Amino acid sequence: MKAKQKKIFTHHDLDKVKIEFKDDATAFNALKKEKFEGKGKLNCLISAKIFEVLIKENIPTHFIELENENTMIAKKIQVVPLEIVLRNIAYGSLCKQTTIKPGTRLSKPLIDIYLKNDELSDPLITKDRIELMNILSSDDLDLIINLTLKINVILKNFFKNIQLQLVDFKLEFGYDYENNILLCDEISPDNCRLWDLKQKNDTIVSLDKDRFRNDLGGLIEAYSEIHRRINDFL
Amino acid sequence: MKAKQKKIFTHHDLDKVKIEFKDDATAFNALKKEKFEGKGKLNCLISAKIFEVLIKENIPTHFIELENENTMIAKKIQVVPLEIVLRNIAYGSLCKQTTIKPGTRLSKPLIDIYLKNDELSDPLITKDRIELMNILSSDDLDLIINLTLKINVILKNFFKNIQLQLVDFKLEFGYDYENNILLCDEISPDNCRLWDLKQKNDTIVSLDKDRFRNDLGGLIEAYSEIHRRINDFL
Repeated sequence: MKAKQKKIFTHHDLDKVKIEFKDDATAFNALKKEKFEGKGKLNCLISAKIFEVLIKENIPTHFIELENENTMIAKKIQVVPLEIVLRNIAYGSLCKQTTIKPGTRLSKPLIDIYLKNDELSDPLITKDRIELMNILSSDDLDLIINLTLKINVILKNFFKNIQLQLVDFKLEFGYDYENNILLCDEISPDNCRLWDLKQKNDTIVSLDKDRFRNDLGGLIEAYSEIHRRINDFL
Repeated sequence: MKAKQKKIFTHHDLDKVKIEFKDDATAFNALKKEKFEGKGKLNCLISAKIFEVLIKENIPTHFIELENENTMIAKKIQVVPLEIVLRNIAYGSLCKQTTIKPGTRLSKPLIDIYLKNDELSDPLITKDRIELMNILSSDDLDLIINLTLKINVILKNFFKNIQLQLVDFKLEFGYDYENNILLCDEISPDNCRLWDLKQKNDTIVSLDKDRFRNDLGGLIEAYSEIHRRINDFL
Protein backbone atom coordinates (compact mmCIF):
# COMPACT_ATOMS: atom_id res chain seq x y z
CA MET A 1 0.00 0.00 0.00
CA LYS A 2 1.68 3.23 -1.08
CA ALA A 3 2.11 5.52 1.91
CA LYS A 4 2.26 8.32 -0.66
CA GLN A 5 -1.51 8.54 -1.16
CA LYS A 6 -2.81 6.82 1.96
CA LYS A 7 -1.90 6.83 5.65
CA ILE A 8 -2.28 3.70 7.76
CA PHE A 9 -3.15 3.98 11.46
CA THR A 10 -3.43 1.30 14.12
CA HIS A 11 -6.88 0.30 15.38
CA HIS A 12 -7.71 -0.71 18.97
CA ASP A 13 -8.61 -4.10 17.50
CA LEU A 14 -5.13 -5.32 16.51
CA ASP A 15 -6.44 -7.31 13.51
CA LYS A 16 -7.66 -4.08 11.94
CA VAL A 17 -6.20 -0.83 10.61
CA LYS A 18 -7.57 2.58 9.69
CA ILE A 19 -6.69 3.80 6.22
CA GLU A 20 -6.88 7.53 5.59
CA PHE A 21 -7.09 8.57 1.94
CA LYS A 22 -5.05 11.72 1.25
CA ASP A 23 -5.53 14.41 -1.39
CA ASP A 24 -2.05 13.87 -2.89
CA ALA A 25 -1.66 12.57 -6.41
CA THR A 26 1.60 11.05 -7.64
CA ALA A 27 2.51 9.66 -11.04
CA PHE A 28 5.53 8.21 -12.83
CA ASN A 29 6.84 6.70 -9.58
CA ALA A 30 6.28 9.94 -7.67
CA LEU A 31 8.35 12.09 -10.05
CA LYS A 32 5.16 14.10 -10.59
CA LYS A 33 3.18 15.26 -7.52
CA GLU A 34 0.17 17.47 -6.88
CA LYS A 35 -2.60 17.95 -4.30
CA PHE A 36 -6.27 17.88 -5.35
CA GLU A 37 -8.68 18.98 -2.65
CA GLY A 38 -11.39 16.35 -2.24
CA LYS A 39 -9.56 13.53 -4.06
CA GLY A 40 -8.95 11.53 -0.87
CA LYS A 41 -12.63 11.58 0.04
CA LEU A 42 -13.77 10.63 -3.49
CA ASN A 43 -11.31 7.71 -3.73
CA CYS A 44 -12.30 6.49 -0.26
CA LEU A 45 -16.03 6.56 -1.09
CA ILE A 46 -15.59 5.03 -4.56
CA SER A 47 -13.32 2.28 -3.20
CA ALA A 48 -15.77 1.43 -0.40
CA LYS A 49 -18.62 1.03 -2.91
CA ILE A 50 -16.54 -1.14 -5.23
CA PHE A 51 -15.23 -3.31 -2.41
CA GLU A 52 -18.87 -3.90 -1.41
CA VAL A 53 -19.71 -4.95 -4.99
CA LEU A 54 -16.77 -7.37 -5.01
CA ILE A 55 -17.56 -8.79 -1.56
CA LYS A 56 -21.10 -9.57 -2.75
CA GLU A 57 -19.50 -11.61 -5.54
CA ASN A 58 -17.41 -13.53 -2.98
CA ILE A 59 -14.10 -11.80 -3.65
CA PRO A 60 -12.09 -11.75 -0.38
CA THR A 61 -11.05 -8.16 0.39
CA HIS A 62 -9.55 -6.27 3.32
CA PHE A 63 -12.47 -3.80 3.46
CA ILE A 64 -14.64 -3.80 6.59
CA GLU A 65 -16.46 -0.45 6.72
CA LEU A 66 -16.12 3.29 6.36
CA GLU A 67 -15.20 5.20 9.50
CA ASN A 68 -15.81 8.54 7.83
CA GLU A 69 -15.67 9.93 4.28
CA ASN A 70 -11.85 9.90 4.24
CA THR A 71 -11.12 6.79 6.27
CA MET A 72 -11.92 3.11 6.00
CA ILE A 73 -11.50 0.33 8.52
CA ALA A 74 -9.79 -2.67 6.95
CA LYS A 75 -8.34 -5.99 7.99
CA LYS A 76 -4.66 -5.77 8.88
CA ILE A 77 -2.64 -7.59 6.25
CA GLN A 78 0.89 -8.38 5.18
CA VAL A 79 1.10 -6.87 1.69
CA VAL A 80 2.55 -8.98 -1.16
CA PRO A 81 5.11 -6.64 -2.78
CA LEU A 82 3.64 -7.01 -6.27
CA GLU A 83 1.36 -4.84 -8.37
CA ILE A 84 -0.99 -6.94 -10.50
CA VAL A 85 -2.08 -5.03 -13.58
CA LEU A 86 -4.85 -6.36 -15.80
CA ARG A 87 -5.27 -4.79 -19.22
CA ASN A 88 -8.32 -5.08 -21.52
CA ILE A 89 -7.11 -2.35 -23.87
CA ALA A 90 -3.46 -1.45 -24.50
CA TYR A 91 -2.53 1.94 -23.04
CA GLY A 92 0.15 3.59 -20.90
CA SER A 93 3.37 1.77 -20.03
CA LEU A 94 2.52 -1.37 -22.06
CA CYS A 95 2.76 0.73 -25.23
CA LYS A 96 6.11 2.18 -24.16
CA GLN A 97 7.56 -1.29 -23.48
CA THR A 98 6.24 -3.10 -26.57
CA THR A 99 5.23 -2.27 -30.14
CA ILE A 100 1.50 -2.63 -29.30
CA LYS A 101 -0.36 0.52 -30.36
CA PRO A 102 -2.34 2.53 -27.75
CA GLY A 103 -6.05 1.73 -27.92
CA THR A 104 -5.59 -1.84 -29.20
CA ARG A 105 -8.38 -4.07 -27.84
CA LEU A 106 -6.56 -7.14 -26.52
CA SER A 107 -7.79 -10.55 -27.71
CA LYS A 108 -7.80 -11.65 -24.05
CA PRO A 109 -6.99 -9.84 -20.80
CA LEU A 110 -3.25 -9.36 -20.29
CA ILE A 111 -1.79 -9.60 -16.80
CA ASP A 112 1.44 -7.67 -16.16
CA ILE A 113 3.11 -7.97 -12.78
CA TYR A 114 5.40 -5.31 -11.33
CA LEU A 115 7.69 -5.51 -8.30
CA LYS A 116 6.70 -2.92 -5.68
CA ASN A 117 10.04 -1.25 -5.08
CA ASP A 118 10.44 2.52 -5.14
CA GLU A 119 14.23 2.44 -5.52
CA LEU A 120 13.91 0.24 -8.63
CA SER A 121 10.88 2.26 -9.90
CA ASP A 122 8.49 -0.73 -9.71
CA PRO A 123 9.98 -2.78 -12.57
CA LEU A 124 8.08 -5.33 -14.68
CA ILE A 125 8.72 -8.81 -13.27
CA THR A 126 8.30 -12.28 -14.77
CA LYS A 127 6.78 -15.32 -13.05
CA ASP A 128 10.19 -17.02 -13.12
CA ARG A 129 11.78 -14.06 -11.32
CA ILE A 130 8.96 -14.01 -8.74
CA GLU A 131 9.52 -17.73 -8.08
CA LEU A 132 13.29 -17.26 -7.82
CA MET A 133 12.92 -14.36 -5.37
CA ASN A 134 10.58 -16.46 -3.17
CA ILE A 135 8.07 -13.59 -3.07
CA LEU A 136 5.21 -16.06 -2.84
CA SER A 137 4.47 -19.65 -3.79
CA SER A 138 3.45 -20.37 -7.37
CA ASP A 139 0.10 -21.70 -6.04
CA ASP A 140 -0.56 -18.37 -4.32
CA LEU A 141 0.52 -16.46 -7.43
CA ASP A 142 -1.93 -18.54 -9.50
CA LEU A 143 -4.64 -17.80 -6.94
CA ILE A 144 -3.96 -14.06 -7.17
CA ILE A 145 -3.99 -14.18 -10.97
CA ASN A 146 -7.29 -16.09 -11.00
CA LEU A 147 -8.82 -13.63 -8.53
CA THR A 148 -7.68 -10.76 -10.76
CA LEU A 149 -9.32 -12.35 -13.82
CA LYS A 150 -12.53 -12.86 -11.84
CA ILE A 151 -12.45 -9.27 -10.54
CA ASN A 152 -12.04 -8.08 -14.14
CA VAL A 153 -15.24 -9.82 -15.21
CA ILE A 154 -17.16 -8.27 -12.30
CA LEU A 155 -15.73 -4.77 -12.68
CA LYS A 156 -15.92 -4.64 -16.49
CA ASN A 157 -19.60 -5.44 -16.24
CA PHE A 158 -20.17 -3.07 -13.31
CA PHE A 159 -18.50 -0.13 -15.05
CA LYS A 160 -20.26 -0.88 -18.34
CA ASN A 161 -23.57 -0.45 -16.50
CA ILE A 162 -22.54 3.09 -15.65
CA GLN A 163 -21.23 3.79 -19.15
CA LEU A 164 -17.55 3.41 -18.37
CA GLN A 165 -15.01 1.34 -20.27
CA LEU A 166 -12.62 -0.46 -17.91
CA VAL A 167 -9.34 -0.16 -19.84
CA ASP A 168 -6.97 -1.51 -17.19
CA PHE A 169 -6.47 -1.57 -13.42
CA LYS A 170 -3.83 -2.28 -10.80
CA LEU A 171 -4.51 -4.51 -7.80
CA GLU A 172 -2.58 -5.34 -4.66
CA PHE A 173 -3.06 -8.37 -2.44
CA GLY A 174 -2.00 -9.37 1.04
CA TYR A 175 -2.21 -12.09 3.68
CA ASP A 176 -4.39 -11.75 6.77
CA TYR A 177 -3.31 -13.26 10.12
CA GLU A 178 -4.83 -16.60 9.10
CA ASN A 179 -2.77 -16.55 5.86
CA ASN A 180 -5.80 -15.96 3.62
CA ILE A 181 -5.13 -13.94 0.49
CA LEU A 182 -7.21 -10.74 0.39
CA LEU A 183 -7.55 -7.96 -2.16
CA CYS A 184 -6.28 -4.78 -0.50
CA ASP A 185 -5.23 -1.21 -1.38
CA GLU A 186 -8.01 0.70 -3.20
CA ILE A 187 -10.16 0.48 -6.35
CA SER A 188 -10.57 4.00 -7.64
CA PRO A 189 -9.84 6.21 -10.67
CA ASP A 190 -6.30 6.39 -9.25
CA ASN A 191 -5.61 2.79 -10.22
CA CYS A 192 -8.27 2.04 -12.87
CA ARG A 193 -8.25 3.54 -16.36
CA LEU A 194 -11.88 4.42 -17.09
CA TRP A 195 -13.03 5.86 -20.42
CA ASP A 196 -16.41 7.55 -20.83
CA LEU A 197 -18.74 5.45 -23.00
CA LYS A 198 -21.18 8.38 -23.23
CA GLN A 199 -18.63 9.88 -25.64
CA LYS A 200 -20.12 9.03 -29.04
CA ASN A 201 -17.18 9.63 -31.41
CA ASP A 202 -13.75 7.97 -31.21
CA THR A 203 -12.17 10.54 -28.86
CA ILE A 204 -10.90 9.02 -25.63
CA VAL A 205 -12.33 10.82 -22.58
CA SER A 206 -10.36 9.68 -19.54
CA LEU A 207 -12.17 9.88 -16.22
CA ASP A 208 -9.15 8.71 -14.21
CA LYS A 209 -5.62 9.61 -13.09
CA ASP A 210 -4.57 10.11 -16.74
CA ARG A 211 -6.16 13.57 -16.33
CA PHE A 212 -3.26 14.32 -13.96
CA ARG A 213 -0.57 12.17 -15.70
CA ASN A 214 -1.25 13.78 -19.08
CA ASP A 215 -2.11 17.28 -17.81
CA LEU A 216 -5.69 17.12 -19.10
CA GLY A 217 -7.15 19.08 -16.15
CA GLY A 218 -10.52 18.43 -14.52
CA LEU A 219 -9.40 15.58 -12.26
CA ILE A 220 -11.83 16.31 -9.43
CA GLU A 221 -14.69 16.78 -11.91
CA ALA A 222 -13.89 13.35 -13.45
CA TYR A 223 -13.64 11.57 -10.08
CA SER A 224 -16.88 13.26 -8.93
CA GLU A 225 -18.60 12.05 -12.11
CA ILE A 226 -17.51 8.45 -11.39
CA HIS A 227 -18.73 8.78 -7.81
CA ARG A 228 -22.06 10.22 -8.95
CA ARG A 229 -22.65 7.46 -11.54
CA ILE A 230 -21.84 4.74 -8.97
CA ASN A 231 -24.20 6.28 -6.40
CA ASP A 232 -26.98 6.69 -8.97
CA PHE A 233 -26.62 3.04 -10.03
CA LEU A 234 -26.32 1.32 -6.64
CA MET B 1 21.35 -10.70 -35.36
CA LYS B 2 22.73 -7.31 -34.43
CA ALA B 3 24.15 -5.66 -37.51
CA LYS B 4 26.23 -3.60 -35.09
CA GLN B 5 28.84 -6.29 -34.52
CA LYS B 6 28.32 -8.51 -37.55
CA LYS B 7 27.69 -7.93 -41.25
CA ILE B 8 25.50 -10.30 -43.25
CA PHE B 9 26.22 -10.92 -46.96
CA THR B 10 24.30 -12.95 -49.53
CA HIS B 11 25.74 -16.27 -50.68
CA HIS B 12 25.48 -17.67 -54.23
CA ASP B 13 23.47 -20.49 -52.62
CA LEU B 14 20.31 -18.58 -51.67
CA ASP B 15 19.66 -20.76 -48.57
CA LYS B 16 22.94 -19.56 -47.08
CA VAL B 17 24.49 -16.31 -45.88
CA LYS B 18 28.01 -15.13 -45.07
CA ILE B 19 28.42 -13.56 -41.65
CA GLU B 20 31.43 -11.30 -41.14
CA PHE B 21 32.40 -10.66 -37.52
CA LYS B 22 33.52 -7.07 -36.98
CA ASP B 23 35.94 -5.62 -34.43
CA ASP B 24 33.30 -3.25 -32.97
CA ALA B 25 32.11 -3.67 -29.40
CA THR B 26 28.88 -2.11 -28.18
CA ALA B 27 27.25 -2.19 -24.75
CA PHE B 28 24.22 -0.74 -22.96
CA ASN B 29 22.20 -0.82 -26.19
CA ALA B 30 25.01 0.76 -28.19
CA LEU B 31 25.35 3.81 -25.92
CA LYS B 32 28.95 2.68 -25.40
CA LYS B 33 31.07 1.80 -28.46
CA GLU B 34 34.69 0.88 -29.14
CA LYS B 35 36.78 -1.03 -31.69
CA PHE B 36 39.10 -3.84 -30.58
CA GLU B 37 41.47 -5.07 -33.27
CA GLY B 38 41.19 -8.84 -33.55
CA LYS B 39 37.89 -9.20 -31.65
CA GLY B 40 35.92 -10.12 -34.79
CA LYS B 41 38.30 -12.94 -35.64
CA LEU B 42 38.36 -14.28 -32.07
CA ASN B 43 34.55 -14.28 -31.76
CA CYS B 44 34.18 -15.94 -35.16
CA LEU B 45 36.66 -18.72 -34.29
CA ILE B 46 35.26 -19.25 -30.77
CA SER B 47 31.66 -19.33 -32.08
CA ALA B 48 32.54 -21.83 -34.80
CA LYS B 49 34.12 -24.19 -32.25
CA ILE B 50 31.15 -23.92 -29.88
CA PHE B 51 28.59 -24.41 -32.65
CA GLU B 52 30.48 -27.60 -33.57
CA VAL B 53 30.27 -28.79 -29.95
CA LEU B 54 26.53 -28.11 -29.90
CA ILE B 55 25.89 -29.74 -33.29
CA LYS B 56 27.60 -32.92 -32.00
CA GLU B 57 25.03 -32.88 -29.17
CA ASN B 58 22.18 -32.61 -31.70
CA ILE B 59 21.39 -28.94 -31.15
CA PRO B 60 20.09 -27.49 -34.45
CA THR B 61 22.17 -24.41 -35.36
CA HIS B 62 22.59 -22.13 -38.36
CA PHE B 63 26.36 -22.80 -38.53
CA ILE B 64 27.70 -24.55 -41.63
CA GLU B 65 31.43 -23.79 -41.83
CA LEU B 66 34.10 -21.13 -41.62
CA GLU B 67 34.94 -19.31 -44.82
CA ASN B 68 37.90 -17.57 -43.26
CA GLU B 69 38.94 -16.45 -39.77
CA ASN B 70 36.45 -13.54 -39.80
CA THR B 71 33.57 -15.05 -41.73
CA MET B 72 31.28 -18.02 -41.30
CA ILE B 73 28.83 -19.57 -43.76
CA ALA B 74 25.47 -20.12 -42.10
CA LYS B 75 21.97 -21.17 -43.06
CA LYS B 76 19.75 -18.24 -44.03
CA ILE B 77 17.12 -17.77 -41.37
CA GLN B 78 14.25 -15.55 -40.32
CA VAL B 79 15.33 -14.29 -36.89
CA VAL B 80 12.82 -14.45 -34.00
CA PRO B 81 12.97 -10.93 -32.50
CA LEU B 82 13.69 -12.18 -28.97
CA GLU B 83 16.85 -12.47 -26.91
CA ILE B 84 16.77 -15.54 -24.67
CA VAL B 85 19.00 -15.04 -21.64
CA LEU B 86 19.80 -17.95 -19.33
CA ARG B 87 21.33 -17.16 -15.95
CA ASN B 88 23.10 -19.60 -13.61
CA ILE B 89 24.46 -16.83 -11.35
CA ALA B 90 22.80 -13.43 -10.82
CA TYR B 91 24.78 -10.59 -12.41
CA GLY B 92 24.30 -7.56 -14.64
CA SER B 93 20.82 -6.28 -15.50
CA LEU B 94 18.99 -8.89 -13.36
CA CYS B 95 20.49 -7.25 -10.26
CA LYS B 96 19.43 -3.78 -11.43
CA GLN B 97 15.82 -4.92 -12.03
CA THR B 98 15.33 -7.00 -8.86
CA THR B 99 16.67 -7.12 -5.31
CA ILE B 100 18.78 -10.23 -6.06
CA LYS B 101 22.42 -9.62 -5.07
CA PRO B 102 25.18 -9.92 -7.73
CA GLY B 103 26.96 -13.27 -7.48
CA THR B 104 23.95 -15.17 -6.08
CA ARG B 105 24.01 -18.77 -7.32
CA LEU B 106 20.46 -19.41 -8.55
CA SER B 107 18.67 -22.49 -7.23
CA LYS B 108 17.77 -23.32 -10.85
CA PRO B 109 18.59 -21.66 -14.20
CA LEU B 110 16.54 -18.49 -14.77
CA ILE B 111 15.36 -17.64 -18.27
CA ASP B 112 14.77 -13.96 -19.03
CA ILE B 113 13.40 -12.98 -22.43
CA TYR B 114 13.94 -9.56 -24.01
CA LEU B 115 12.27 -8.04 -27.06
CA LYS B 116 14.86 -7.23 -29.75
CA ASN B 117 13.98 -3.62 -30.46
CA ASP B 118 16.62 -0.89 -30.53
CA GLU B 119 14.14 1.97 -30.19
CA LEU B 120 12.70 0.42 -27.02
CA SER B 121 16.20 -0.55 -25.77
CA ASP B 122 15.45 -4.31 -25.82
CA PRO B 123 12.96 -4.39 -22.91
CA LEU B 124 12.28 -7.41 -20.69
CA ILE B 125 9.17 -9.20 -22.00
CA THR B 126 6.81 -11.69 -20.36
CA LYS B 127 5.42 -14.87 -21.96
CA ASP B 128 1.93 -13.34 -21.89
CA ARG B 129 3.14 -10.27 -23.81
CA ILE B 130 4.95 -12.51 -26.35
CA GLU B 131 1.73 -14.47 -26.89
CA LEU B 132 -0.32 -11.29 -27.22
CA MET B 133 2.08 -9.80 -29.77
CA ASN B 134 1.95 -13.02 -31.85
CA ILE B 135 5.74 -13.11 -32.01
CA LEU B 136 5.69 -16.90 -32.13
CA SER B 137 3.43 -19.75 -31.03
CA SER B 138 3.60 -20.86 -27.42
CA ASP B 139 4.72 -24.32 -28.64
CA ASP B 140 7.66 -22.76 -30.47
CA LEU B 141 8.48 -20.60 -27.44
CA ASP B 142 8.50 -23.74 -25.26
CA LEU B 143 10.76 -25.44 -27.80
CA ILE B 144 13.20 -22.50 -27.71
CA ILE B 145 13.18 -22.47 -23.90
CA ASN B 146 13.83 -26.22 -23.75
CA LEU B 147 16.66 -25.90 -26.29
CA THR B 148 18.16 -23.10 -24.17
CA LEU B 149 18.06 -25.28 -21.03
CA LYS B 150 19.69 -28.15 -22.94
CA ILE B 151 22.38 -25.82 -24.37
CA ASN B 152 23.08 -24.62 -20.81
CA VAL B 153 23.82 -28.15 -19.63
CA ILE B 154 26.19 -28.73 -22.57
CA LEU B 155 27.96 -25.37 -22.33
CA LYS B 156 28.25 -25.30 -18.52
CA ASN B 157 30.00 -28.64 -18.68
CA PHE B 158 32.13 -27.65 -21.68
CA PHE B 159 33.34 -24.43 -20.07
CA LYS B 160 33.95 -26.15 -16.72
CA ASN B 161 36.37 -28.47 -18.53
CA ILE B 162 38.41 -25.45 -19.51
CA GLN B 163 38.17 -23.86 -16.05
CA LEU B 164 35.49 -21.32 -16.88
CA GLN B 165 32.29 -20.63 -14.96
CA LEU B 166 29.34 -20.04 -17.29
CA VAL B 167 27.50 -17.27 -15.42
CA ASP B 168 24.89 -16.42 -18.07
CA PHE B 169 24.47 -16.20 -21.84
CA LYS B 170 22.19 -14.72 -24.48
CA LEU B 171 20.88 -16.76 -27.39
CA GLU B 172 18.95 -15.92 -30.54
CA PHE B 173 16.90 -18.30 -32.65
CA GLY B 174 15.40 -18.25 -36.11
CA TYR B 175 13.42 -20.27 -38.64
CA ASP B 176 15.05 -21.83 -41.72
CA TYR B 177 13.15 -22.07 -45.04
CA GLU B 178 11.59 -25.35 -43.87
CA ASN B 179 10.34 -23.63 -40.67
CA ASN B 180 12.76 -25.49 -38.41
CA ILE B 181 13.94 -23.57 -35.36
CA LEU B 182 17.70 -23.11 -35.32
CA LEU B 183 20.10 -21.51 -32.86
CA CYS B 184 21.68 -18.54 -34.65
CA ASP B 185 23.76 -15.43 -33.91
CA GLU B 186 27.03 -16.27 -32.11
CA ILE B 187 28.29 -17.93 -28.92
CA SER B 188 31.28 -15.95 -27.75
CA PRO B 189 32.56 -13.88 -24.82
CA ASP B 190 30.40 -11.09 -26.29
CA ASN B 191 27.20 -12.86 -25.21
CA CYS B 192 28.37 -15.27 -22.47
CA ARG B 193 29.58 -14.18 -19.05
CA LEU B 194 32.59 -16.37 -18.29
CA TRP B 195 34.49 -16.20 -14.99
CA ASP B 196 37.97 -17.70 -14.58
CA LEU B 197 37.88 -20.75 -12.30
CA LYS B 198 41.70 -20.72 -12.12
CA GLN B 199 41.24 -17.73 -9.82
CA LYS B 200 41.63 -19.29 -6.37
CA ASN B 201 40.23 -16.57 -4.07
CA ASP B 202 36.75 -15.04 -4.28
CA THR B 203 37.67 -12.27 -6.74
CA ILE B 204 35.63 -12.39 -9.94
CA VAL B 205 37.88 -12.40 -13.01
CA SER B 206 35.68 -11.74 -16.05
CA LEU B 207 36.96 -13.12 -19.35
CA ASP B 208 34.09 -11.62 -21.37
CA LYS B 209 32.48 -8.37 -22.56
CA ASP B 210 32.24 -7.12 -18.95
CA ARG B 211 35.92 -6.14 -19.44
CA PHE B 212 34.57 -3.52 -21.89
CA ARG B 213 31.23 -2.78 -20.11
CA ASN B 214 32.95 -2.16 -16.78
CA ASP B 215 36.17 -0.60 -18.16
CA LEU B 216 38.35 -3.39 -16.81
CA GLY B 217 40.75 -3.38 -19.80
CA GLY B 218 42.42 -6.43 -21.36
CA LEU B 219 39.47 -7.47 -23.54
CA ILE B 220 41.56 -8.96 -26.36
CA GLU B 221 43.79 -10.77 -23.83
CA ALA B 222 40.68 -12.29 -22.19
CA TYR B 223 39.10 -13.38 -25.50
CA SER B 224 42.45 -14.81 -26.65
CA GLU B 225 42.69 -16.79 -23.40
CA ILE B 226 39.22 -18.29 -24.02
CA HIS B 227 40.20 -19.14 -27.60
CA ARG B 228 43.48 -20.72 -26.45
CA ARG B 229 41.77 -22.86 -23.77
CA ILE B 230 39.12 -24.08 -26.25
CA ASN B 231 41.78 -25.00 -28.83
CA ASP B 232 43.93 -26.77 -26.23
CA PHE B 233 40.92 -28.79 -25.04
CA LEU B 234 39.34 -29.79 -28.36
